[in-house]
Amino acid sequence: MTHVIAADIGGTNIRLAIVDPQGQIIAESRLQADLSRHSESSQTMAESHVIKVLAEAIKPFASRHQVSRMGMGFPGFFHGQSGLLASSPNLPLLQNFALADRLADALDLHVVVENDALCAAIGEQKYGAGQGCANLLHITLGTGIGSGLILNNWPYSGEHGMAMEFGHLCIEHHNGRLCGCGNHGCVEAYASATAVIKRFNEICQCEIPDAKSIFEQARQGHACAVTITNEAGQYLGMSIAEAVKLLDVTTITISGGLTGGWDILYPSLKCELDNNLIPPLKGKVEVLRSRLDDNAGLLGAAVIAGRG
Amino acid sequence: MTHVIAADIGGTNIRLAIVDPQGQIIAESRLQADLSRHSESSQTMAESHVIKVLAEAIKPFASRHQVSRMGMGFPGFFHGQSGLLASSPNLPLLQNFALADRLADALDLHVVVENDALCAAIGEQKYGAGQGCANLLHITLGTGIGSGLILNNWPYSGEHGMAMEFGHLCIEHHNGRLCGCGNHGCVEAYASATAVIKRFNEICQCEIPDAKSIFEQARQGHACAVTITNEAGQYLGMSIAEAVKLLDVTTITISGGLTGGWDILYPSLKCELDNNLIPPLKGKVEVLRSRLDDNAGLLGAAVIAGRG
Repeated sequence: MTHVIAADIGGTNIRLAIVDPQGQIIAESRLQADLSRHSESSQTMAESHVIKVLAEAIKPFASRHQVSRMGMGFPGFFHGQSGLLASSPNLPLLQNFALADRLADALDLHVVVENDALCAAIGEQKYGAGQGCANLLHITLGTGIGSGLILNNWPYSGEHGMAMEFGHLCIEHHNGRLCGCGNHGCVEAYASATAVIKRFNEICQCEIPDAKSIFEQARQGHACAVTITNEAGQYLGMSIAEAVKLLDVTTITISGGLTGGWDILYPSLKCELDNNLIPPLKGKVEVLRSRLDDNAGLLGAAVIAGRG
Repeated sequence: MTHVIAADIGGTNIRLAIVDPQGQIIAESRLQADLSRHSESSQTMAESHVIKVLAEAIKPFASRHQVSRMGMGFPGFFHGQSGLLASSPNLPLLQNFALADRLADALDLHVVVENDALCAAIGEQKYGAGQGCANLLHITLGTGIGSGLILNNWPYSGEHGMAMEFGHLCIEHHNGRLCGCGNHGCVEAYASATAVIKRFNEICQCEIPDAKSIFEQARQGHACAVTITNEAGQYLGMSIAEAVKLLDVTTITISGGLTGGWDILYPSLKCELDNNLIPPLKGKVEVLRSRLDDNAGLLGAAVIAGRG
């Protein structure tokens, strides 16, 4: 095992790191880059644009550090472990796109790519709060809600790479809030940062721009902030219970910006989780805050860089 | 591969079969036996009772047919593939009970035991409507709702053998009907035969004893029967959508007594399934009626008899 490049591709930025075999980040770089902001209208041109932007960002970093392998977490659905991108919600022109192979050619590196939330699960299992768990459900709680699943020490991504659409579990089948996916009542429409901010501003008719301030208001006893953040925790607890009913995993880890409100979210989350689990599992399921903050995805990318 | 004994243990009866290597049932026996009807109050005595009842039922059948291996589907939760019964809802005295080993000693056979619904999934994948599917969710729709999951051609049972508690997915988080598990709003409280009969009799203030008659009334346009059977289909469709969001399986098979109302249940099931799936999977998930009727569990038991 040698040092590898780890890349975590977000909506508007790229994070790069050199990671040593012990999972230590020994160099890091953050760049602004929006892969979706382009004027190309054909699939071929959109593909070339994505490769160009990523290669321009990664090449200088790779040449400063002598590495031969890169792992990448990318927001999209992949066919198995092939690095073939089936589709990406934010980049609709990309369909069945050989992302890993194209990047390998452009960068002259061994490249392995996985779904970003699955990378976070892999990182959390190897280096974080999920260490030692053969089965792990990891939830990323940020502007949206993502999730990744490890079963028998193996990342599980489903038939279309669309397994673990945890954020779109429905917890309000009647009169549920509209979700970004087009359905109603998804947990993401109640418990993502976007949803918490939107609900608070709607009810209080104000324009607080971030969840951190809403958690702060909740800590000070602001009734509306308390209600909305409690409900976010409750809906998360209900959704985790549903996932446990199907998967029978004992450890759930949560990373992402909203974990800054852990003291507010956790009590209502844990209460509703235990209320909704099947009786033999009540009290037996552990929900842990990530120990890796926002590095879970980056460290998971370093792990998959060793594949193949 | 040679002939094996397959056993399917139900609430009140035992089915035994000799199955050839092609999955043909070449001899069969059905016996009445209620394992839970005993006066033993200690775990040791309850264990001995279960082994005695099963051995007395199986021994004469086994000695008529010269076989050395038996597979069994049993209603309970098992630790991995060890045949060690963690617990069984209907037999609460049995805890961490080495069912397979004890039966092997009593019968002088190689014995492999799995959860009954998981056996049905294994049978359906090998010989039924799930043939050729590496990933399969199988639902048993009878007095209760059970389910079994195959992932990458491997039966998945979770950390406590309690994966795929599909019947207890919650589809009514507010004012849901009480389920046998103690929670409210489970799909089993709306779409099992028990639930369909109970709801019909409550609303119509009558005492129809079986679901078959209610489906018949629905076919003849009886408003209340139409509503209740449609709702059962809808709740099943909603629950299957939730399972697909987590598992990304494309084929779902359903067996059990209620599939006799397939013509009534399927249209509303399919409609709600597609309404609730995440958009990229709408229309791509197939729900098939079992081709094995009530033999799925028995044939799955024959498959696992070949293990180890």
